[in-house]
Amino acid sequence: MGLTGNTRILNNQLRAKVMSAEAAAELIASGSTVGMSGFTGSGYPKAVPLALAARMEAERAAGNKFRLRVWTGASTGPELDGALAKADGIEFRLPYNSDPIAREKINRGEMEYFDMHLSQVAPMAWQGFLGPLDTAIIEVTGITADGALVPSSSVGNNKTWLDRAQKVILEVNRWQNPALEGMHDIYYGTALPPHRVPIPLIRPDDRIGQTTFSCDPDKIVAIVETDGPDRNLPFAKPDDAALRIAGHLIEFFRHEVARGRLPASLLPLQSGVGNIANAVLTGLMDAPFENMTAYTEVIQDGMLDLLNTGKLRMASATSFSLSPTAAEAMNANMSQYRGNMILRPQEISNHPELIRRLGCLAMNGLIEADIYGNVNSTHVMGSRIQNGIGGSGDFARNAYVSIFMTPSTAKGGKISAIVPQVSHVDHINQDVQIIVTEQGLADLRGLSPKQRANVIIANCAHPDYRPMLLDYYARARKGSYGQQSPSLPGEALSWHQRFMETGSMRV
Amino acid sequence: MGLTGNTRILNNQLRAKVMSAEAAAELIASGSTVGMSGFTGSGYPKAVPLALAARMEAERAAGNKFRLRVWTGASTGPELDGALAKADGIEFRLPYNSDPIAREKINRGEMEYFDMHLSQVAPMAWQGFLGPLDTAIIEVTGITADGALVPSSSVGNNKTWLDRAQKVILEVNRWQNPALEGMHDIYYGTALPPHRVPIPLIRPDDRIGQTTFSCDPDKIVAIVETDGPDRNLPFAKPDDAALRIAGHLIEFFRHEVARGRLPASLLPLQSGVGNIANAVLTGLMDAPFENMTAYTEVIQDGMLDLLNTGKLRMASATSFSLSPTAAEAMNANMSQYRGNMILRPQEISNHPELIRRLGCLAMNGLIEADIYGNVNSTHVMGSRIQNGIGGSGDFARNAYVSIFMTPSTAKGGKISAIVPQVSHVDHINQDVQIIVTEQGLADLRGLSPKQRANVIIANCAHPDYRPMLLDYYARARKGSYGQQSPSLPGEALSWHQRFMETGSMRV
Ligand SMILES: CC(C)(COP(=O)(O)OP(=O)(O)OC[C@H]1O[C@@H](n2cnc3c(N)ncnc32)[C@H](O)[C@@H]1OP(=O)(O)O)[C@@H](O)C(=O)NCCC(=O)NCCS
Ligand SMILES: CC(C)(COP(=O)(O)OP(=O)(O)OC[C@H]1O[C@@H](n2cnc3c(N)ncnc32)[C@H](O)[C@@H]1OP(=O)(O)O)[C@@H](O)C(=O)NCCC(=O)NCCS
Repeated sequence: MGLTGNTRILNNQLRAKVMSAEAAAELIASGSTVGMSGFTGSGYPKAVPLALAARMEAERAAGNKFRLRVWTGASTGPELDGALAKADGIEFRLPYNSDPIAREKINRGEMEYFDMHLSQVAPMAWQGFLGPLDTAIIEVTGITADGALVPSSSVGNNKTWLDRAQKVILEVNRWQNPALEGMHDIYYGTALPPHRVPIPLIRPDDRIGQTTFSCDPDKIVAIVETDGPDRNLPFAKPDDAALRIAGHLIEFFRHEVARGRLPASLLPLQSGVGNIANAVLTGLMDAPFENMTAYTEVIQDGMLDLLNTGKLRMASATSFSLSPTAAEAMNANMSQYRGNMILRPQEISNHPELIRRLGCLAMNGLIEADIYGNVNSTHVMGSRIQNGIGGSGDFARNAYVSIFMTPSTAKGGKISAIVPQVSHVDHINQDVQIIVTEQGLADLRGLSPKQRANVIIANCAHPDYRPMLLDYYARARKGSYGQQSPSLPGEALSWHQRFMETGSMRV
Repeated sequence: MGLTGNTRILNNQLRAKVMSAEAAAELIASGSTVGMSGFTGSGYPKAVPLALAARMEAERAAGNKFRLRVWTGASTGPELDGALAKADGIEFRLPYNSDPIAREKINRGEMEYFDMHLSQVAPMAWQGFLGPLDTAIIEVTGITADGALVPSSSVGNNKTWLDRAQKVILEVNRWQNPALEGMHDIYYGTALPPHRVPIPLIRPDDRIGQTTFSCDPDKIVAIVETDGPDRNLPFAKPDDAALRIAGHLIEFFRHEVARGRLPASLLPLQSGVGNIANAVLTGLMDAPFENMTAYTEVIQDGMLDLLNTGKLRMASATSFSLSPTAAEAMNANMSQYRGNMILRPQEISNHPELIRRLGCLAMNGLIEADIYGNVNSTHVMGSRIQNGIGGSGDFARNAYVSIFMTPSTAKGGKISAIVPQVSHVDHINQDVQIIVTEQGLADLRGLSPKQRANVIIANCAHPDYRPMLLDYYARARKGSYGQQSPSLPGEALSWHQRFMETGSMRV
């Protein structure tokens, strides 16, 4: 615990590498590939990207192009994706984005975006499938006397970027709580096949790695000292729809426990990003489940509340995603949380092997689902990216129960979240066991497509759209080429087309 | 090795339970759920299902209904799926079917079919998500003196059906080679969470279980002696398209080895069902890879040839899928193959944990792919089931490289296998790294959707359809709602609609 003193860089050799963000940004060449820290707005570098953006703007003013290929853990913050996208400095981006400026660039066709399963980023980088990595820019909480790097508020792909990059730039952020030291579990046992071995984690609590990153000091070319908060957006107060969704879902869990299909303390929870996921966690505060655990990507406000009351025994994730208030409260009690929270690399938090072994209860949001239970999590009207698939595929396919949640309509009722056919598929019907809207819950386990259609239309669709869905389905049962999953290709996507033409899916 | 004598039932207590297939069929009630052995036409029961079918026909003639819910490993043979479907005796079927009569029933809407990931059948049965299992009907090669069951030519879900069923009917098939004894590896270490542990398999060769099934003798209500061959269909001689596909793929493997992205002996091969998969295996006979291994679902003719020449060191699977000639040749040398073949339960052969750990090279067939690399393996024109997803999702998502292969057209050129948008999705673009047609190979690793579209249209589409695809794509880039994956919902499925109306996708 040496990080509470004057400096966060306790290693003398490395202290000599401190420089300004501008000087560090000069070390990066246009056209190169940069692997940055950052996951759901936590632990991303905050100074060097801004300096890079300034350089990009200056180069552009001088008639030159300066663009990078940018890899991260997941979404970052305005100082990274926002600033670089605004400077038109991102040529190619992976694996996840939720920044509004970058999203616009992508959807105008001005930035290439490769939206990946989050568990696969590190292995595919090691496999050499993503090309070489020139520079890593990683935020850390501090550097120990022997040169180990204390991670900050997210782990993401940092271990892999540090290992793979030719040179490394560190941002040491004084804003990050020094008491984070000891919370992380950085697993160094991955390998390429044929040398891969079982990952020795059998409970969410298991620690299988070290608390810091190792990094060859010779690769570290610059260290920048910063003092800035994570993005930390506030959550919306759960609205009526969110509360109803949470209610249906908790009722389902009670029912499953009563039937003996779930233990009384449930199974490790995975909770997706967004307000509804957070509302479900809040709902669990008053539910009769004790000693729960979480094995998930992000720790949100709702999870902290559950930890505080002891309902949640411990949480494993790769990152925080907190409101400013919750971040402050957590920082004030960090040493207490260090006992019941673990942050891991995303290839471990999202590993198919571990999600399947632990039997996670996966709860994720969606954009639209169709009457057969195929889910679109990413593409509005089939083409416009919202965020990305993120870890939802890692969890949905390998979960004990894969649950998707959504209000039954979007855009003030002009869009039905239940459609004849989804305009893009992220989760095939086999990976979707439960769909919940404020209207009700569809339990799709063990059902054929036609059986699923009946339940989804009856339980999940909004009453305004239910007759339209029933009408389509009845006609599909007559005019379809085959009757396994009746459909009318000429009409299946007409709801989307109508929305594009008239601004509403209603007839 | 006591199975070569007069009887295959060496246990006296169990020998007393021998009866006719008709008597055994009487033990099954209409409306009940039956778990049968059988995987890709191997190791399915051959007598009791026929007796059941006769009973169904008789009941129907008498004005009564007699229908069952039928679970298996995967596809079976005409004596099971064919006969029961013909007798209109299957109310609900899971998880895979390739029988033509059953397929017609399903596509006429007369049989409910739940098409599942093959790795998930056993866990979901244990989780209680599929409902109770009344009777297991399992083909075995023999019964040892202490009552252990020697598996036959497929393992599939037999262990799970034997464990979960209330009563068990065995078919002891004298046609099955007694030298199969010792080839199987039946893992008894699975559990429900929170008690799941790592599966201790780190190479395809590892044996982690026992060679026989254990079964409570009190549950065994009937034993039927049979003497009939497996379905064993001949493979077509590879045509020109298949040879070209094999050529492109082997060229790719050579390239990857040269770049150091694959070891010289490759990584464990998974090879899907069908003629093209078999052609690729045949192509590997002349390729410069030695000491290969296979970790796959089925062992086809091509794999036997590779084993014979020693190119393939060993193969792990859950079943055989051989031509009659190959089956005969194998049976003549079974004791030799026992040293380099292992048959396992399908939850192990297809386990995500193991496929990812071993780094399988997955090679599967498809019905259609779209310009972004989404793959439809199951639904012709979006609605008519061909077979089912089978294990393709288990392998595609977790493979080291996920490869899909197809001729660029079907039905004599009237259908393009590359379309603007697939009419059904089984494999999302993230799970598809390579697409190969006779036209060429598209390497999609690390590419954004628009980059993928360029490569797929240029390398894989048939020249007759390429201009139509380029035209659609150019217009989508103008009229799309967003530019991540440009699409025109009003037109995306029009090729399928045209085929349904005119019998051809051509304009
Ligand atoms: C799907 C997802 C976008 C939903 O997020 P959310 O916060 O629960 O949902 P919201 O209702 O706020 O929707 C987000 C936006 O999509 C829009 N939207 C939602 N459904 C829509 C639909 N069917 N059609 C068009 N737009 C839709 C909303 O209107 C909103 O747009 P706005 O910001 O312009 O108002 C989000 O869950 C996601 O990105 N998922 C994929 C990644 C993931 O699951 N990660 C967790 C895995 S561990
Ligand atoms: C996709 C699949 C059907 C292709 O099988 P195949 O034997 O290589 O391919 P074929 O070219 O013989 O096609 C099979 C049928 O589908 C038809 N077909 C193929 N592509 C088609 C298309 N795009 N549109 C319409 N029909 C098509 C063929 O014409 C043929 O029909 P026919 O029997 O009436 O002549 C097969 O690979 C499959 O079932 N895959 C899913 C399961 C799987 O992958 N299992 C292995 C995992 S371990």
